[in-house]
Amino acid sequence: MTTNENKFQEIISHAKEYGFVFPSSEIYDGLSAVYDYGPYGSELKKNIRDYWWKSMTQLNENIVGIDAAIFMHPTTWKASGHVDNFSDPMIDNRDSNKRYRVDHLIEGLADKLEDEGKNQEAEALISEMDRLLAAEDYAGLKELIATNNIVCSISGTGNWTDIRQFNLMFSTQLGSVAEDADTIYLRPETAQGIFVNFLNVQKTSRMRIPFGIAQTGKAFRNEIVARQFIFRMREFEQMEMQFFVRPGTEGEWYRYWKEARLQWHLSLGISADKYRYHDHVKLAHYAKEACDIEFEFPIGFKEVEGIHSRSDFDLTQHQLFSKKKMQYFDNDVDPATGKPYGNYIPYVVETSIGLDRMFLLILSESYEVETLTKDDGSTDNRVVMHIPAKIAPVKLAVLPLVKKDGLPEIARELMNDCKPHFRCFYEEKDAIGKRYRRQDAIGTPFCVTIDHQTKEDQTVTVRHRDSMLQERISLKDVKEMVLKNLL
Amino acid sequence: MTTNENKFQEIISHAKEYGFVFPSSEIYDGLSAVYDYGPYGSELKKNIRDYWWKSMTQLNENIVGIDAAIFMHPTTWKASGHVDNFSDPMIDNRDSNKRYRVDHLIEGLADKLEDEGKNQEAEALISEMDRLLAAEDYAGLKELIATNNIVCSISGTGNWTDIRQFNLMFSTQLGSVAEDADTIYLRPETAQGIFVNFLNVQKTSRMRIPFGIAQTGKAFRNEIVARQFIFRMREFEQMEMQFFVRPGTEGEWYRYWKEARLQWHLSLGISADKYRYHDHVKLAHYAKEACDIEFEFPIGFKEVEGIHSRSDFDLTQHQLFSKKKMQYFDNDVDPATGKPYGNYIPYVVETSIGLDRMFLLILSESYEVETLTKDDGSTDNRVVMHIPAKIAPVKLAVLPLVKKDGLPEIARELMNDCKPHFRCFYEEKDAIGKRYRRQDAIGTPFCVTIDHQTKEDQTVTVRHRDSMLQERISLKDVKEMVLKNLL
Repeated sequence: MTTNENKFQEIISHAKEYGFVFPSSEIYDGLSAVYDYGPYGSELKKNIRDYWWKSMTQLNENIVGIDAAIFMHPTTWKASGHVDNFSDPMIDNRDSNKRYRVDHLIEGLADKLEDEGKNQEAEALISEMDRLLAAEDYAGLKELIATNNIVCSISGTGNWTDIRQFNLMFSTQLGSVAEDADTIYLRPETAQGIFVNFLNVQKTSRMRIPFGIAQTGKAFRNEIVARQFIFRMREFEQMEMQFFVRPGTEGEWYRYWKEARLQWHLSLGISADKYRYHDHVKLAHYAKEACDIEFEFPIGFKEVEGIHSRSDFDLTQHQLFSKKKMQYFDNDVDPATGKPYGNYIPYVVETSIGLDRMFLLILSESYEVETLTKDDGSTDNRVVMHIPAKIAPVKLAVLPLVKKDGLPEIARELMNDCKPHFRCFYEEKDAIGKRYRRQDAIGTPFCVTIDHQTKEDQTVTVRHRDSMLQERISLKDVKEMVLKNLL
Repeated sequence: MTTNENKFQEIISHAKEYGFVFPSSEIYDGLSAVYDYGPYGSELKKNIRDYWWKSMTQLNENIVGIDAAIFMHPTTWKASGHVDNFSDPMIDNRDSNKRYRVDHLIEGLADKLEDEGKNQEAEALISEMDRLLAAEDYAGLKELIATNNIVCSISGTGNWTDIRQFNLMFSTQLGSVAEDADTIYLRPETAQGIFVNFLNVQKTSRMRIPFGIAQTGKAFRNEIVARQFIFRMREFEQMEMQFFVRPGTEGEWYRYWKEARLQWHLSLGISADKYRYHDHVKLAHYAKEACDIEFEFPIGFKEVEGIHSRSDFDLTQHQLFSKKKMQYFDNDVDPATGKPYGNYIPYVVETSIGLDRMFLLILSESYEVETLTKDDGSTDNRVVMHIPAKIAPVKLAVLPLVKKDGLPEIARELMNDCKPHFRCFYEEKDAIGKRYRRQDAIGTPFCVTIDHQTKEDQTVTVRHRDSMLQERISLKDVKEMVLKNLL
């Protein structure tokens, strides 16, 4: 394992040990690519979600929220193209009964060729694969697998079935009457819940273009290869915003949101050099422009958010399938004609971020093992989570130095003062250094120690997580000190 | 329709017209018993959820949260009893192909008998049905239907199939390899996500008994008869807390939570006489005590929350099925023996509230059509939502009296000052009275009008939603006035 892979494994272990993320149903040996968030994880996840929601809806007067159901009318996914196109070409090995994604199978050989220094052969293979995939030439792809003698890693044979499309949507049956039961899907993205509600939202909130609709919620994809911890899960959470604009202005709004979304990430204090844009070269036929915001995870630069200029594709499709007009009447005056712009189907610029990926980003960026040198020259490791204070699971730990002499009583008063405003943690057992380290491990930015001096002069020791510096401040200023750091 | 049914219909219309609740996928004619929350609805729903979460976790040091996935290992539902028992006996009419819940079919006849004044016959029928249901005597139930000549309302015939159990869980297939795909379920309750994580949570959060684990999240039930707007949906959201206690203390904790949960409802300022307890007489075999907190909806008193003393049933079942010890070591000293209580499986007291029902409760309690008498004696109707300020979707509307003379600029400054702290709404068009009424309809507790006097003495008019009283306060005090009302 490389250093980075080691670090990734360390983060996963730490996440479990300190109650951030557990494998789902672990007592039953887990469920593949599904995870549960523990006590500190559920707080961190909620705080990230709330921070996004506030920045999108509360701070932008022209963005409103919705909370659409996971279940939607099945025609939604016909219109969106998911029923026909949201699938991967798959192939089965007849001897092992194992199923593979065709592109992964061929990429596996290309990787091997590269390892052997045959870079040109590898490139030629990938480029031929890309051509055949784009042409949906499955017979050609099967032949490519045969020609290159690609075999199943289990059976070792090249006894392959034909290539078939495998849809990534989960389906279930709604309704009790067998004859009437509808096959419905668990939504593979939250965006369509916004599109189908476009007119209801626009009318009831009396929004004028340009305006946005934001939503957070679960989505589900039956990923063939779900891996890398919470990076690619079968059940995950999205935070999406669709911004509706006048056709012709989508370019400027695309650039606006591309920049605004990166600034949102940086507003959390994460260093800019961990981020980069990846502009898409290949675009969906309806798309005008698209890019990813990538973050340097321990496993490399990976997409955490996408910004997409989607034209009027989705609304037009829903108009077509529902026979309901999805038009907006724009009574702003067009300077070119002197008349209102009138009726049109708005264009859409979308920002789409994975909440679980953002969570993993925060874990990756926060986790550090520091080597501390003591006065006697010996060293000690400190595991610390440098989670930004405004999204940290616990904001303040209140620690009476000893469990007597009236110190717990003073600490309790401070707890009662602070608890209604932010999440606090109280602990009176164990040596103070040990208690500090436990708070470091869950990312608590501030520890306050109540000691005997507190009784004399009403001051406490504030110990700062990142610098480990300690300072003496007035007991009555603690609450404001924390609150100031949460804005 | 009765007055109350009318009021219920009015609330549903209002909820749609003002962006609280839309039928799901309405452009495709909706999806039965599924709803989407619009701009004001999503805010209100989030505020209720956050209020519960804060009161449960932030304010109780011995309750921590989790966020478990909707997908769980299928054995979870074997252990919990849902695979075998979470079902209703159903019967099909062969001529109409319509399926009925057996109890609803028989109750339909009982209602008819009561309408005809044959109360004794009706009671005898219901009591016989209850006896047969308890004995799971399906042949007997079928005979009861035949003897009483109960026919299908569509076909008019008594040509019935045998009675079968219909499980209310939604199922789907996880995994891509047909041979390996697992049938999994969408969780029908969030509670099991807490039970299977009990040890992980207890260890990582270092909680000592008594302590609780809280969770909010979606659950799914394929209800046969889903109805009454968002009261009974197929996709809904729960807010549950499982409190783990030492066996023998469950009675006192049950009484504690029964009282504490009612106090939570009253803390929102809702009048106590709209609530009542309904203590369960029939209990599940493992249950010690159980009650509902009922609220008087326009459609009558209905359950909004349940408090259940569940013994060690769930943890014991999971220990049995997973072969993992679900025990807790209690090192508190038992005064009777002078030794630690030692190892045991904790008992559980559960509080379970439906977020959507709580939302409907707030709509029902808040909605009012007031008849106002004007100075000239004529009357006018005002539709107002008396939503408690701390959970209202919008807290403050900032309204410059006219769109000139520098008033919008002053209003903008106030917006910028307040927006980071709570949700504000800005509007400068239409007569001020009309703007007030629109805020009344979405439940905004405070409107502030900026007028020409503001420029002279830096005061504004605050108009209070419930009383409609107006007062003049200093511009610089607006933010604090609102914040004070949100605590």
